[in-house]
Amino acid sequence: MWEKTPFTKKVKCKLPIIQAPMALATTPELVAAVSNEGGIGSYGAALDTPEDIRKNIHKIRELTDKPFNVNLFTPLNPSRDEKKINAMNQILQGYRDELGVNEPTIPEKIPSKFDEKMMVILEEKPAIFSFTFGSLDLNYTDRLREEGILICGSATTVEEGVHLEENGVDMIAAQGFEAGGHRATFLHPTKDALIGNFALIPQLADRVSVPVIAAGSIMDARGILAALILGASAVQMGTAFLTTHESPISKEHKQAILKASSTSTTLTRSFTGKSARAIRNRFVDEMDGFDELTCDFPIQGRLTAPIRKKAKENKKTDLLSLWCGQAPNLSQDISTSNLIKNLVKNMDDLVKSLP
Amino acid sequence: MWEKTPFTKKVKCKLPIIQAPMALATTPELVAAVSNEGGIGSYGAALDTPEDIRKNIHKIRELTDKPFNVNLFTPLNPSRDEKKINAMNQILQGYRDELGVNEPTIPEKIPSKFDEKMMVILEEKPAIFSFTFGSLDLNYTDRLREEGILICGSATTVEEGVHLEENGVDMIAAQGFEAGGHRATFLHPTKDALIGNFALIPQLADRVSVPVIAAGSIMDARGILAALILGASAVQMGTAFLTTHESPISKEHKQAILKASSTSTTLTRSFTGKSARAIRNRFVDEMDGFDELTCDFPIQGRLTAPIRKKAKENKKTDLLSLWCGQAPNLSQDISTSNLIKNLVKNMDDLVKSLP
Repeated sequence: MWEKTPFTKKVKCKLPIIQAPMALATTPELVAAVSNEGGIGSYGAALDTPEDIRKNIHKIRELTDKPFNVNLFTPLNPSRDEKKINAMNQILQGYRDELGVNEPTIPEKIPSKFDEKMMVILEEKPAIFSFTFGSLDLNYTDRLREEGILICGSATTVEEGVHLEENGVDMIAAQGFEAGGHRATFLHPTKDALIGNFALIPQLADRVSVPVIAAGSIMDARGILAALILGASAVQMGTAFLTTHESPISKEHKQAILKASSTSTTLTRSFTGKSARAIRNRFVDEMDGFDELTCDFPIQGRLTAPIRKKAKENKKTDLLSLWCGQAPNLSQDISTSNLIKNLVKNMDDLVKSLP
Repeated sequence: MWEKTPFTKKVKCKLPIIQAPMALATTPELVAAVSNEGGIGSYGAALDTPEDIRKNIHKIRELTDKPFNVNLFTPLNPSRDEKKINAMNQILQGYRDELGVNEPTIPEKIPSKFDEKMMVILEEKPAIFSFTFGSLDLNYTDRLREEGILICGSATTVEEGVHLEENGVDMIAAQGFEAGGHRATFLHPTKDALIGNFALIPQLADRVSVPVIAAGSIMDARGILAALILGASAVQMGTAFLTTHESPISKEHKQAILKASSTSTTLTRSFTGKSARAIRNRFVDEMDGFDELTCDFPIQGRLTAPIRKKAKENKKTDLLSLWCGQAPNLSQDISTSNLIKNLVKNMDDLVKSLP
């Protein structure tokens, strides 16, 4: 009964449910499990090499013959500020000493290999290609369309959604203020693009004709149905999948989400240079005063990478980037298959319970 | 068909729709119009004198025999900081010169007359008494209950909602990040209590047994139904009523809302000392850097009052507090009666359209 949204009709899938493309936090098993249940699994490929992206797409295809999504970050041009890098290195040195890791070398130009990755996408032809942090070069839009690949952009404001539609996307992932992980904002300063889903979804749905996919603290059947009623054609769920058995994040990160509450998270630039929602911990709190010295994405991410890697190995959650949306009370320790089966059952029951 | 929510059963009204109690922005005509249509009109009495509160309640009773709500702010103890007051006076002097108004005198103690106002409430017995910015003295909770007056507290986090229930409220207005006007936060620093409705409503509804009333960018039937599905028993709508024909705000404020977009608003302490959502204008932008010098509520409000009063007279919207939620694109120039009639019709149609 959920095949009738503009999204499910366009993608030819059963459920208006997308598992969010979370870079470094999706596996072929997770993606395939979602798609096999009738939703859309998303491979967050942004931080993988072109070779690994191809391998992982092949692996997903071994596990499912259903449609899935692959996501990349559009190329960014960070401004490299040596003074800031030096200042940030001094700030971070204490954490490096504590963990016994070295200051990393930041290459003059950080290669994104976007074009090589797009070649893989165009050759491998996932059902959907989604992108984050900007709009897509129109040459790629044309070539994706020629290959029959649906195109999904990411917006955090009505203006960004309208801009994406004008630039030829087939659907728009609309990310509310509530969402965990990185803000997808690209047309505004982050502080001007913090719009809750109750405001973002209906105002955007009224302005564009392509399907709107609501994202941000959608964790259960209530959230899905509410988003559809507000005008979305589908939902994109991130945090809800982070605690599934198929999720590759650390046991410590999962536990932190399962134990967190609605006031546990905050937006921070401290880990990567881009504003992102994470569970507050020592690192977030201690870095709170240094926003002006925080380097651009992805430079800041490179600077903190050895700290986060070692903290993960040492299970030190006080220095980890614990991405999480605003509704962790609704997270579950559950298999992906059971999560989706329960969502569908509860959606059906909810509709029946309405007056 | 909407009388069946825990809220409507408790209050004995037809619709799960409350017009938000907006201090200085409600009139007996607006309150009565909402109640006469089957919703709950709210008189935002916080800034009126005890005498005026009594008169206005009598006026409402002349216009309707239906239940309505009266709201007060719980007493606050602002810390008076002469250095800050002097610094803020210097910052504000330019605006005062521009408008030809004088520096106001700030009394040593700003009288809230809360007890006198509560006497009026207890004697006049509105169906609902709601309060904002704290929890209520338990003596008053007992006395309100003895008089058969339902008690509604205001929460911005799950913790605040649980606290209010433990202190005996009959229902909780849950204010999402999206909401216009003042943040009702009282247990946390404002920055730790910015939770979008998609996260706040279901997590709070799961934790308390009293009805939850969702507030924040709920502007149309989609928002109402979405809130009910997320777990609310009713909604509280503010901005949607600000542009009705019965709303007493200035024509310039109404026009500003009707022309605003999802990115037009921001949270600011500059007008009153408490964080509140308003349309960005010259005053908000220019005051942006002075947060550390902004005085506590209500001292800052006293300091800016002559500026706002004169700006209103002179129709200078660049210096006015243009309270507004995050969904002004959904606002309408409409009568209160037609707004509510349309909401009900559209809610019924929406339910029928579900799979």
